Amino acid sequence: MKRRDLLIGAVGGVVVGGAATGVVTSQRGGQGARGPGIIKDRIEVAMVSTWPRDFPGLGTGAQRFAERVGEMSDGRIVVEYFAGGERVKPFDSFDEVASGNAQMYHAADYYWKGKHPSWAYFTAVPFGLTYTEMNAWIRFGGGQELWDELAAESNLKGLMCGNTGVQMGGWFRKEMNSADDFKGLKMRIPGLGGDVLTKLGASPVSLPGSQIYENLVSGAIDATEWVGPWNDNAMKFYEAAKYYYYPGMHEPGAMLSCGINKDFWESLSQADRVMIEAAASMENDVMMSEYNAKNSEALRRLISEQGVQLRRFNDDIYDAFGRAAAEVFASVVDHSALARRVHNSFVRAREDVGAWAKISDQEYVRQRNRVLGL
Amino acid sequence: MKRRDLLIGAVGGVVVGGAATGVVTSQRGGQGARGPGIIKDRIEVAMVSTWPRDFPGLGTGAQRFAERVGEMSDGRIVVEYFAGGERVKPFDSFDEVASGNAQMYHAADYYWKGKHPSWAYFTAVPFGLTYTEMNAWIRFGGGQELWDELAAESNLKGLMCGNTGVQMGGWFRKEMNSADDFKGLKMRIPGLGGDVLTKLGASPVSLPGSQIYENLVSGAIDATEWVGPWNDNAMKFYEAAKYYYYPGMHEPGAMLSCGINKDFWESLSQADRVMIEAAASMENDVMMSEYNAKNSEALRRLISEQGVQLRRFNDDIYDAFGRAAAEVFASVVDHSALARRVHNSFVRAREDVGAWAKISDQEYVRQRNRVLGL
Repeated sequence: MKRRDLLIGAVGGVVVGGAATGVVTSQRGGQGARGPGIIKDRIEVAMVSTWPRDFPGLGTGAQRFAERVGEMSDGRIVVEYFAGGERVKPFDSFDEVASGNAQMYHAADYYWKGKHPSWAYFTAVPFGLTYTEMNAWIRFGGGQELWDELAAESNLKGLMCGNTGVQMGGWFRKEMNSADDFKGLKMRIPGLGGDVLTKLGASPVSLPGSQIYENLVSGAIDATEWVGPWNDNAMKFYEAAKYYYYPGMHEPGAMLSCGINKDFWESLSQADRVMIEAAASMENDVMMSEYNAKNSEALRRLISEQGVQLRRFNDDIYDAFGRAAAEVFASVVDHSALARRVHNSFVRAREDVGAWAKISDQEYVRQRNRVLGL
Repeated sequence: MKRRDLLIGAVGGVVVGGAATGVVTSQRGGQGARGPGIIKDRIEVAMVSTWPRDFPGLGTGAQRFAERVGEMSDGRIVVEYFAGGERVKPFDSFDEVASGNAQMYHAADYYWKGKHPSWAYFTAVPFGLTYTEMNAWIRFGGGQELWDELAAESNLKGLMCGNTGVQMGGWFRKEMNSADDFKGLKMRIPGLGGDVLTKLGASPVSLPGSQIYENLVSGAIDATEWVGPWNDNAMKFYEAAKYYYYPGMHEPGAMLSCGINKDFWESLSQADRVMIEAAASMENDVMMSEYNAKNSEALRRLISEQGVQLRRFNDDIYDAFGRAAAEVFASVVDHSALARRVHNSFVRAREDVGAWAKISDQEYVRQRNRVLGL
């Protein structure tokens, strides 16, 4: 990869300033608000990611985060962003940052569940947490501490940095009326969600986004999930599968992460750590807001312009999902003591915050939407 | 107020640095990480608020925001925080900042609905938006632009800076079985929620938090709402009213605001504006997460230790709330062209995002909680 070779020389080196390592003074380019000048403590960050450049939501959110850090620091912290493949292949992002070759990645941490199954909990697991529940667990339910412990094993530190919200259940060529309809179904669905479908007799397939459409059209797969209406609309899955099911049990609020090389993180001043944390926190919510704002309109268009048939998974199917998910989790916790602690903390948060959600957001929205006919 | 006189001299003046106004260099105190030294462009901000000092959630969140701005800027932007009454009375916060006497307030903007009814929409209105819906409206549905327009009329700029989530319906001495049970009820409930209850024949009363308990115990009022289990538990309302109803129709996600003097905001560099915006955005979510994490446990304790009876408002009551709210809104939009535009934008967001919530979070949490028995 020639591009990679070219760029590593330019941005691979990190200049860390501040009290701990002394102040480095470097020349600033001419594009800044104050024109050419001297900036103290300039810090250069290479950020790799798992998303195509300008991919709506996931990619544009990551890029917005990188720009925001530059803006907040008045150009002192420069985050050079590399979309998937521009510097390393998407799934090499983890090693690139763990090794210190780059300083940050933007990704969904469940991509690393082959390294340790607990990574999945810090994106989304079947029957898991919604956006607000996840934030409550990470911030006040012990989630961040466990995430830190897991990440430290790979010399990483993670920050919440985006969310897609509840994902759709997927695109199917036929109506799904019972759990039996999953038997023999070839469906693109990665991660623990795929493991759940295996228990129902389906054959889950893992395919990168760019290859799903052709496989669905050719009939190599029968069904696929992706994200939600806003992202799915662009993928044109409706050309091959008209039944669009909700809600997905597999990703009820997929959190995206800013993964940071731990040595780099600890070399930063407290001020710079708080600044980066706030920028990530803002992106966590801005991305969620964008999905919530754009999914509705996209869904309307899918139905009215493409003849998509919106369908709800029934109770029989959800009951079967639930039994299968319990089996999947039983083997996940056998992995290690840490896997069990992460799972138990997650379950406690789900019980606590889930019980509160039931009488707050859940019952309120039910009554409001019923009364207003929404 | 002697304390106020003492403090105004110390923090009332604002020193603004950067390109627009030139660089001011001032002496730094000895508490900083680097010890005594010189800081360029020091900016001093006086932030008033409507909350008692250290009030859980609302007050501690505002204080955390003020501290975070100081941390992020490495002490360059100093936000001196004044709880309600420490510098001005809580409800004088608006004028204090609009006039430029102070630079920021932390408050619930519906406190200013006497000045313009549209302010209510930027905290919470009956049958309004939940936390994630509100964020989607403000960030991507035209909400921020309308808020800016409204605020500019008073030389202010608003940023989202906290949320309580869906509030409880209130504490009652008797069971509420139909809309008729509200006739003649003296209930502490401020704002448009109170106006809705007036239509049902109740007598809403507005009381500051510190006076609710004594009025409830003495029988001067029959019922009260406040926030949710975490905050309500500390108020000991259960000593006088055992029936605790959900969900509240009046504040389905009360957003708190950081209101900023507009001249001050515009005098800041782009970098400082982005920094303050990210700090506010982070607090918006941290406060929401804290309420979600702590409400559940507090509710359990209320039920098990205080014998509180948890009750759900039934459909008859919610239907009556809905009819009354429609009447209340009909008079709100008559106020002015801006009031109508804000209302219409809000209604569009409620339809769009509300329809999406129905098939995403709403149906997912219903199925998950049903399957898991949560």
